[in-house]
Amino acid sequence: MVAHKFQYDHNMSDQPLRVCLVGSGNWACAIARIIGENTVLNDSVFEPKINMWVFEELVRGRKLTDIINQEHENIKYLPGYKLPSNVVAIADLKEAARGADILVFCLPHQFLPRLLPDVRAILKPGAFAVSLIKGIDFNENGGIVLVSDIIRDGLGIDCSVLMGANVANEVAAGDFCESTLGTLHLHHGDILRQLFHAPTFHVNIVLDPHGVELCGALKNVVALGAGFCDGLGYGGNTKAAIIRLGLIEMKKFCYRFFDGIKEDTFFESCGVADLITTCFGGRNRKCAELFVKDKGVTWEEMEATVLNGQKLQGTGTAKEVYHIIERTNALHEFPLFTAIYRIAFEREDPKNIAKL
Amino acid sequence: MVAHKFQYDHNMSDQPLRVCLVGSGNWACAIARIIGENTVLNDSVFEPKINMWVFEELVRGRKLTDIINQEHENIKYLPGYKLPSNVVAIADLKEAARGADILVFCLPHQFLPRLLPDVRAILKPGAFAVSLIKGIDFNENGGIVLVSDIIRDGLGIDCSVLMGANVANEVAAGDFCESTLGTLHLHHGDILRQLFHAPTFHVNIVLDPHGVELCGALKNVVALGAGFCDGLGYGGNTKAAIIRLGLIEMKKFCYRFFDGIKEDTFFESCGVADLITTCFGGRNRKCAELFVKDKGVTWEEMEATVLNGQKLQGTGTAKEVYHIIERTNALHEFPLFTAIYRIAFEREDPKNIAKL
Repeated sequence: MVAHKFQYDHNMSDQPLRVCLVGSGNWACAIARIIGENTVLNDSVFEPKINMWVFEELVRGRKLTDIINQEHENIKYLPGYKLPSNVVAIADLKEAARGADILVFCLPHQFLPRLLPDVRAILKPGAFAVSLIKGIDFNENGGIVLVSDIIRDGLGIDCSVLMGANVANEVAAGDFCESTLGTLHLHHGDILRQLFHAPTFHVNIVLDPHGVELCGALKNVVALGAGFCDGLGYGGNTKAAIIRLGLIEMKKFCYRFFDGIKEDTFFESCGVADLITTCFGGRNRKCAELFVKDKGVTWEEMEATVLNGQKLQGTGTAKEVYHIIERTNALHEFPLFTAIYRIAFEREDPKNIAKL
Repeated sequence: MVAHKFQYDHNMSDQPLRVCLVGSGNWACAIARIIGENTVLNDSVFEPKINMWVFEELVRGRKLTDIINQEHENIKYLPGYKLPSNVVAIADLKEAARGADILVFCLPHQFLPRLLPDVRAILKPGAFAVSLIKGIDFNENGGIVLVSDIIRDGLGIDCSVLMGANVANEVAAGDFCESTLGTLHLHHGDILRQLFHAPTFHVNIVLDPHGVELCGALKNVVALGAGFCDGLGYGGNTKAAIIRLGLIEMKKFCYRFFDGIKEDTFFESCGVADLITTCFGGRNRKCAELFVKDKGVTWEEMEATVLNGQKLQGTGTAKEVYHIIERTNALHEFPLFTAIYRIAFEREDPKNIAKL
């Protein structure tokens, strides 16, 4: 991966920094509750008002932006939890992002190619970004493309990442958890920590954004393996072995395809903690369990029924990861990732998950 | 900790190595099924017959040794699973251990001071040991004493350790799992791997016996914290955070009080995998959950009722670990271990587990 040059450097003016949250789904609204409170508490650093870009839709006959701005609740994606009144929903992206010093991206990455040109058109000098988007993408040559790289390249600015064991509804409920901020830019990292850190949401900074982001994507592949174990009725020994082997292959994959990955990253919330949460809860684990139990079912059917239209990230990532390690003749070094792919897509016996 | 000098070195004779298994409880019998098969399969390396020392007791009016030798099953401690017929139960320790080249210790460590002099009296030159005993002990000055050190010192021989995510009944059932062999002696490690490794029981060697053994003890402290979370009804984010913070404090404790600990050890089965198994299953987690839910109950009452007389290892270890870090003025560096101790023994509010 190439090092990134940034067009702008944040100017250390006295003006409070303006924050734009690009996205308004379940996770975006949960994090809005935290950053909306922090900008008010730290109004010498941040402008309290946060613009939240909302993909406009009608909910019960009303515009979602109107509902959010009048009732301070996203009744569709995070019902039951109020948003701070200083978080303002805006349907026009340019209007929402104009003047922002900090762009917080939190939405399905498929949206980015369409949105980034609009943001770039009104980008404020010195602005920087942070991505809360889990997942990786792949280019037409089958090479890995980090979501943060799409943002970096699309806007020409620095982009940190925030990942961890952060089930959105539990964060919204104020349950204690941790998160990992991966950055290459200590000054941005320091500001972003002030934006996100809270008494029940502990943010650790690590200088390894690629490692943090890859953990967030690869854990979903391991979760499929954990789900296969559950579907087969295997006990704690076997499931723990699969999770451990998954962590080892995550590390190996990162080291092989990226420079500068730090081992400590895997001990952070984005690493072992998120892996545990995802392998015991989470939709990838759940669908993989059903895949084994209900032998005829397809992944697409489960997305349509069990997930009510949501997409599984683990299956897509498993497929692309497999193609990368196959093309680089490294299948024998990734026996678990290989087995997960073949069970998921080549009708291999799920019991082979425990015959590595 | 001091480096150990060994009185004997294993002589590379052509004679097959004789194995004595000291212990016949649940875990000892599960591992007997594996090593009993391996000594037959590798009879150029090992004498097939394995002597198993049994603490004699009457079960349904019959001697346990007779039951095992006639029915090839320990109906009290591992009912439902046959032992290989080449595993022979012997009630006299000297008779069982005489002539043994490899001593496999698998019994509560409280037995050791009484047993080791008998073993030493008949010890064969070149013999070496391996400990499957999880837990640590403490001397009268409150210093840490590794169980393997008790064996090393008591017998004056090398002692490796075998630890991992190995719930005994799942191992007996032949479920796939992994285990970690910690050794300082590569030749002994190689022999022991041949003794323990099996298609469904994968053994990795690491040259860090202290790290392996400490993981096996300290994970039980973290499991108390995980159990408190469960008792409070906390979700996956919080529990994952507690497990992660526990892993970090396990590492920190090892580094602070022992030399030569390797970071990779924590990625082995004895580390992250056993920690996961113990924090989702296991008696320490279970009793900690009940401790929170049933506010009046004591640890001793739970040992007597819930555990049917079995001892909790986590509470004793939590207490001793606390005293060590308190005496070395390091409480602030171990906020989780400190909170777990205070909740368990000083009536601190369990909710403080998530206020670190």
